[in-house]
Amino acid sequence: MRKLVMIPGPTNVSDRVMNAMISPIISHRSSDFHQLYSEIAEGAQQVFETTDDTVVLTSSGTGAIEASVVNLVRPGDEVIVPVFGEFGQRLSESIELAGGKPILIEAPLGEAPTIDSIEEAFEKHKGAKAVYVVCNETSTGVRIPWLKHIGELASKYGTLFVADAVSYLGGDELPVEQWGVDLCVTCSQKCLAAPPGLSLLSVSKKARKFIEENPPMSKFFDLSNYIRFYERKKETPFTPSLPLYRAIHEAILLVLEEGMERRVQRHKTCANAFYQGFKALGLKPLVEEEIRSNTVIAIRYPQNIDDKRFRKMLDEEFRITVAGGFGDLAGKIFRVGCMGEISSHHVLATLSAVASVLKLQGETVNIDEALRITTDHLRPLKSLQQPLST
Amino acid sequence: MRKLVMIPGPTNVSDRVMNAMISPIISHRSSDFHQLYSEIAEGAQQVFETTDDTVVLTSSGTGAIEASVVNLVRPGDEVIVPVFGEFGQRLSESIELAGGKPILIEAPLGEAPTIDSIEEAFEKHKGAKAVYVVCNETSTGVRIPWLKHIGELASKYGTLFVADAVSYLGGDELPVEQWGVDLCVTCSQKCLAAPPGLSLLSVSKKARKFIEENPPMSKFFDLSNYIRFYERKKETPFTPSLPLYRAIHEAILLVLEEGMERRVQRHKTCANAFYQGFKALGLKPLVEEEIRSNTVIAIRYPQNIDDKRFRKMLDEEFRITVAGGFGDLAGKIFRVGCMGEISSHHVLATLSAVASVLKLQGETVNIDEALRITTDHLRPLKSLQQPLST
Repeated sequence: MRKLVMIPGPTNVSDRVMNAMISPIISHRSSDFHQLYSEIAEGAQQVFETTDDTVVLTSSGTGAIEASVVNLVRPGDEVIVPVFGEFGQRLSESIELAGGKPILIEAPLGEAPTIDSIEEAFEKHKGAKAVYVVCNETSTGVRIPWLKHIGELASKYGTLFVADAVSYLGGDELPVEQWGVDLCVTCSQKCLAAPPGLSLLSVSKKARKFIEENPPMSKFFDLSNYIRFYERKKETPFTPSLPLYRAIHEAILLVLEEGMERRVQRHKTCANAFYQGFKALGLKPLVEEEIRSNTVIAIRYPQNIDDKRFRKMLDEEFRITVAGGFGDLAGKIFRVGCMGEISSHHVLATLSAVASVLKLQGETVNIDEALRITTDHLRPLKSLQQPLST
Repeated sequence: MRKLVMIPGPTNVSDRVMNAMISPIISHRSSDFHQLYSEIAEGAQQVFETTDDTVVLTSSGTGAIEASVVNLVRPGDEVIVPVFGEFGQRLSESIELAGGKPILIEAPLGEAPTIDSIEEAFEKHKGAKAVYVVCNETSTGVRIPWLKHIGELASKYGTLFVADAVSYLGGDELPVEQWGVDLCVTCSQKCLAAPPGLSLLSVSKKARKFIEENPPMSKFFDLSNYIRFYERKKETPFTPSLPLYRAIHEAILLVLEEGMERRVQRHKTCANAFYQGFKALGLKPLVEEEIRSNTVIAIRYPQNIDDKRFRKMLDEEFRITVAGGFGDLAGKIFRVGCMGEISSHHVLATLSAVASVLKLQGETVNIDEALRITTDHLRPLKSLQQPLST
């Protein structure tokens, strides 16, 4: 029996995208593949909102994040990294492994470094090679609302701007070219709502020039090689994961049919309905409103609710899977993915099941009120059925 | 309309394996996943014929080959590498990128370095860290028939033995533990007949110990981290490609149902039928019998046959895709994948279509005779329907 997978990725995947995977195997050196890959690459440009190059890697997101590091960071490079959760932490470790010197701007779990502290780092480390920003910290549900400002700082200080948009792109606002992102990394199984196994990157002209003049120590992750292969032949240098190329092709078509603006609006609306509904159940979000994520909803447990028991009942009796917390937040929060296919159905079914589990486990919750408030806040979805411009 | 994909990977994939991909998405931190991954890992042990650890990477084969290098090779290490085609060449480049010093044992395209020349390299470079051997050079259709002997040399000289078995494992003989292979690398889309996008490795105790004591510069490719995650939780450290895990699970079940011994015998029989059939058509294999591959059949073109025109007609009129040659062999040979699902149907349909294209393009070929000879040599397949032991 199918479950609603409400974790921060992998997400639920539509039948249209799933079924695309079972297309017959083709040669990855054939004209059929050239057409498939061209359509993916051109669609990806629209998703990233850029006219620059895009790359598809047959690897999980962690691989693509590593690619973003090994392509740009060289031994001795100073690299500014806001660290406010697990994925910022991993980024700083990868930068160290590449010989870089991470300049950490730290914030407690559930908070974000201020834009002032980031600006200060730029000012103090004027020769910094790059700034690596986790746009949306999947481990805490914190989003960085000043990405545009960071892009302006990067441009002002001549610093490369790398965005880890893994749990963000396709669900929140990130016009890559306009905001000056040099490398943007995302992957298939988050807001693009395809199955896991692929990652996508955009590469600015400035980043490409650097990589071409300073090839990385990795063949598998050499982004300029992928770009050259695409330009020359519409092929990948190494065997692509064909079923996942089919899936991401279909998923990107769905994104473009919806339109990025409406898609982001849908995610925001569903996230808001989640926050309001959970609040009506007496639950507190981990994150303050200004920096809370539209794609990963992190909610504190009431004092008497046990993480494992709660998620087990939700999973087994209501067939809805949510995630727990990482590290210091383990046992203290649960996280709900608000990504990809997210609709009023997903929000209401999840909220109602969470309410029921809380009730069954002894909490006093006002389910009626929560459902009413959630439904109210989902109402803007109706207008999204039409193009936003009409 | 479906084509017969007779290239050296990706191969044709059975419906049972393809359909496994569309199972609903699950959490990769759930007990459902733990069971799936355990069954894959235990099945992989049987495919590798080892009791040591196995690792599944969400990356293409090139990624896994890079993993084999970055986990073992450290700056200054001497590494013995037979180079007799494109993939040996790539290995030596990866070893150089990792700071290693490749000791090349070269042979012309279509030939293999002798075991004596390999033994000589061990003798001359007694401190060599590792020997990296492409078991089956996909670019030329040469297989190394003395892998067991190389394992004995590696053991004698205390050298790590790494086998690039990408186009080989599951279709030819490689009892990893018995032959002393420390790292064996293969991937999903070759002789295991799953779609591309995953790679599989086996890791000996000796290799694991080295990696744990000398962690690589890569997080994504740190094999010991994958092994630890599997041991502790039956999970992968990073998001796995779920649909491809479903596919490789089913593909491995099919391998085990058939049995490795019968599977190898089937590949050998089909390969022999191909070689005999092509010979009967007046075509010459690139490779001498002793070292010719059972999984990649490389055939020289007759003088007047144009590579592109030949493959185009085969593809468009007969819906059978074969591959051309790499580098210096481009235009001179075509390559037929004899992998995975390979059966009398695949052999006869391909051979008959090749014969027809040759005829249509002006060659004098005896189709009747070739079909008779091919059919004769396919006869042993019948006895493989029963377990070999009965």
